[in-house]
Amino acid sequence: MKKIKIDAYALLEKVRTQKPVVHHLTNWVTIYDCANIVKVLGASPVMAHAKEEVGQMAEIASSLVLNIGTLTPELIEAMKLAAKSANRKGIPVVLDVCGAGATQLRDKKSLELLNETKINIIKGNASEIARVSGESVKTKGVDAGRVGKDMVKIAQNLARSRKCTVVVTGKEDIVTDGKKLYIIKNGHPMMAHIVGTGCMASSVIGTFSAVEKDLAYAAAAALVCFEIAAECAVKLSSGPGTFKEKIFDCIFNLDKKTIERMQKVEC
Amino acid sequence: MKKIKIDAYALLEKVRTQKPVVHHLTNWVTIYDCANIVKVLGASPVMAHAKEEVGQMAEIASSLVLNIGTLTPELIEAMKLAAKSANRKGIPVVLDVCGAGATQLRDKKSLELLNETKINIIKGNASEIARVSGESVKTKGVDAGRVGKDMVKIAQNLARSRKCTVVVTGKEDIVTDGKKLYIIKNGHPMMAHIVGTGCMASSVIGTFSAVEKDLAYAAAAALVCFEIAAECAVKLSSGPGTFKEKIFDCIFNLDKKTIERMQKVEC
Amino acid sequence: MKKIKIDAYALLEKVRTQKPVVHHLTNWVTIYDCANIVKVLGASPVMAHAKEEVGQMAEIASSLVLNIGTLTPELIEAMKLAAKSANRKGIPVVLDVCGAGATQLRDKKSLELLNETKINIIKGNASEIARVSGESVKTKGVDAGRVGKDMVKIAQNLARSRKCTVVVTGKEDIVTDGKKLYIIKNGHPMMAHIVGTGCMASSVIGTFSAVEKDLAYAAAAALVCFEIAAECAVKLSSGPGTFKEKIFDCIFNLDKKTIERMQKVEC
Repeated sequence: MKKIKIDAYALLEKVRTQKPVVHHLTNWVTIYDCANIVKVLGASPVMAHAKEEVGQMAEIASSLVLNIGTLTPELIEAMKLAAKSANRKGIPVVLDVCGAGATQLRDKKSLELLNETKINIIKGNASEIARVSGESVKTKGVDAGRVGKDMVKIAQNLARSRKCTVVVTGKEDIVTDGKKLYIIKNGHPMMAHIVGTGCMASSVIGTFSAVEKDLAYAAAAALVCFEIAAECAVKLSSGPGTFKEKIFDCIFNLDKKTIERMQKVEC
Repeated sequence: MKKIKIDAYALLEKVRTQKPVVHHLTNWVTIYDCANIVKVLGASPVMAHAKEEVGQMAEIASSLVLNIGTLTPELIEAMKLAAKSANRKGIPVVLDVCGAGATQLRDKKSLELLNETKINIIKGNASEIARVSGESVKTKGVDAGRVGKDMVKIAQNLARSRKCTVVVTGKEDIVTDGKKLYIIKNGHPMMAHIVGTGCMASSVIGTFSAVEKDLAYAAAAALVCFEIAAECAVKLSSGPGTFKEKIFDCIFNLDKKTIERMQKVEC
Repeated sequence: MKKIKIDAYALLEKVRTQKPVVHHLTNWVTIYDCANIVKVLGASPVMAHAKEEVGQMAEIASSLVLNIGTLTPELIEAMKLAAKSANRKGIPVVLDVCGAGATQLRDKKSLELLNETKINIIKGNASEIARVSGESVKTKGVDAGRVGKDMVKIAQNLARSRKCTVVVTGKEDIVTDGKKLYIIKNGHPMMAHIVGTGCMASSVIGTFSAVEKDLAYAAAAALVCFEIAAECAVKLSSGPGTFKEKIFDCIFNLDKKTIERMQKVEC
């Protein structure tokens, strides 16, 4: 692995200029944060989950973000309809496999989404991605911090078998489309002390994927921007409550110089 | 149009003293913000959407706020039950036609609500109100900023045909009951950079309509207070995240002198 | 009643060390706040409400928090499944009877939960607890401030008849298991000016009950910590918006010395 520079700011500028519509079917816990992070990026969030309209809503969007955090079978059916509409239109679909591994329902429904629709970006933490990949793996070491070589392999294999981009978040993030591999070393431990950073990361990835066809590159740039904003927010906050609000300030105010100076990417 | 002064503070005082119960069936994105803005105004929000209880809940309320932002057919049926109960009791019903025009479901369900129940205040942005009015109109210029004469006419016609008050939010807001017309020039562009200001505006209108029978006047006073608070909040914030929190601080702390000094109303 | 000291910090330390999983089926208004307050305490919130998974999710949890704030009959059925699973596993179940007394649905469903499952901690304000106890009582004086002797008796009787712990929140909080009685005099009037403090209190109680078998003691310690954090947050804020964020900062940063110095408990 060697250190590289990516032009994450160029994609952020594209988001701010093109203002893509990002359609979400997400969980009820972080739905506001997912919408708001897209808004402060300069794009246009739409949250809609009725099976009677999700297909039409996906048609007017430039990307679709699915998150199974508070799934029900009915919501998953609406996700499938939205994803199929997105597939027909050719816009990218991000799936956050939030909580995969915790219950049989989550495992079953994650696989249904992956098998019945085309998911372009699968995103989760190490144990979630390991679960979805079907491989048996001890993820404890990975969750604890540094990226294990096993996890990179699992992500690459999943990306190849599903012909998609895989994002594994953690202290260090893995982004791969099976060929290219990015390791993002930005971020801050405070991100793990509040609810919603994982879900917001998926929304940022969804937003960047709306303006860049190379989805691994888009996802890497998205994480770089989001995590640099988080690093800046920590410096301006006195705990997790103020940290949360400052993330929105910092991503709204994020500029080229800061991104270039602070980014830590390897490939 | 000429500049006028309205006694918005007198209504805010009434809200703080009478503490009306404001029943909501709203969307899942901004439900917290809708409840909290009512609370910090000094009133009492109630959020309840089960069809088994919405009728009874509306009976103990002083106004009802409906918002179709994350509608489903089931939720719309519960909204109809709540609205009919509110109609029987004679309390005002506010409908935020959030996202009207985006999908057929939204158009159809907005019209069902308008046709099957008595809506006292219809609120939306220019394109949403144009859609609900059934008139074909180019709304781009209106969305972009200054109020077009066409939009005033559309709002007035809708108010007359539906015998209700119509609120069109934007850089300048239109409030009309078909006879009276208020143009509110308060507010700040930062309001468009976060999710929830539109929904909160509807909740503030619903709260003011609970204490004042002249609904156009109530809506104008509500927007004046909310948007002055937003202007104050911008000055105290470093971006959209802190702006959002400061709105709650500023509306809680809003006093007579500030309202009188900062209000920009024409009629 | 005499002033006593309880070692609330010892339980907070246990939460931070053991990081228990706290499963919630809660309302859609404060669901983020409930999850986030558990997270900033150092524990691990899980929000899941699909009837297909709630039983399995409760099995991997250390406590279960139910809140009927935005109930539907379907959600109550899922709550029963989760509670029965928690009962079988022997983990504590907290029920926030949010809004009991407002509609027949809330009264009926509160009683169904209490009769069909084992609830270990019932939590509400004075009028809600009076309603659930089935006793006719004038609660106005209690809501207004100081704890009435009647309310203590109602709480004790409910605790004895239901063989559970009862928590009555207000200016002064009552915690009793029918034998022991704690009166908590911490907190600040600002807590009543925002939405969510009541729901968050239930989540904190659920979190502390996951690490301490004496549930009355756990609930008392939870309220002491939460309300001291709120007192600290008021000092750092300029209104209800910033107060809300500072609660999360303050509970995250809460230390032994502060708890020992500020606690106001009688028994």
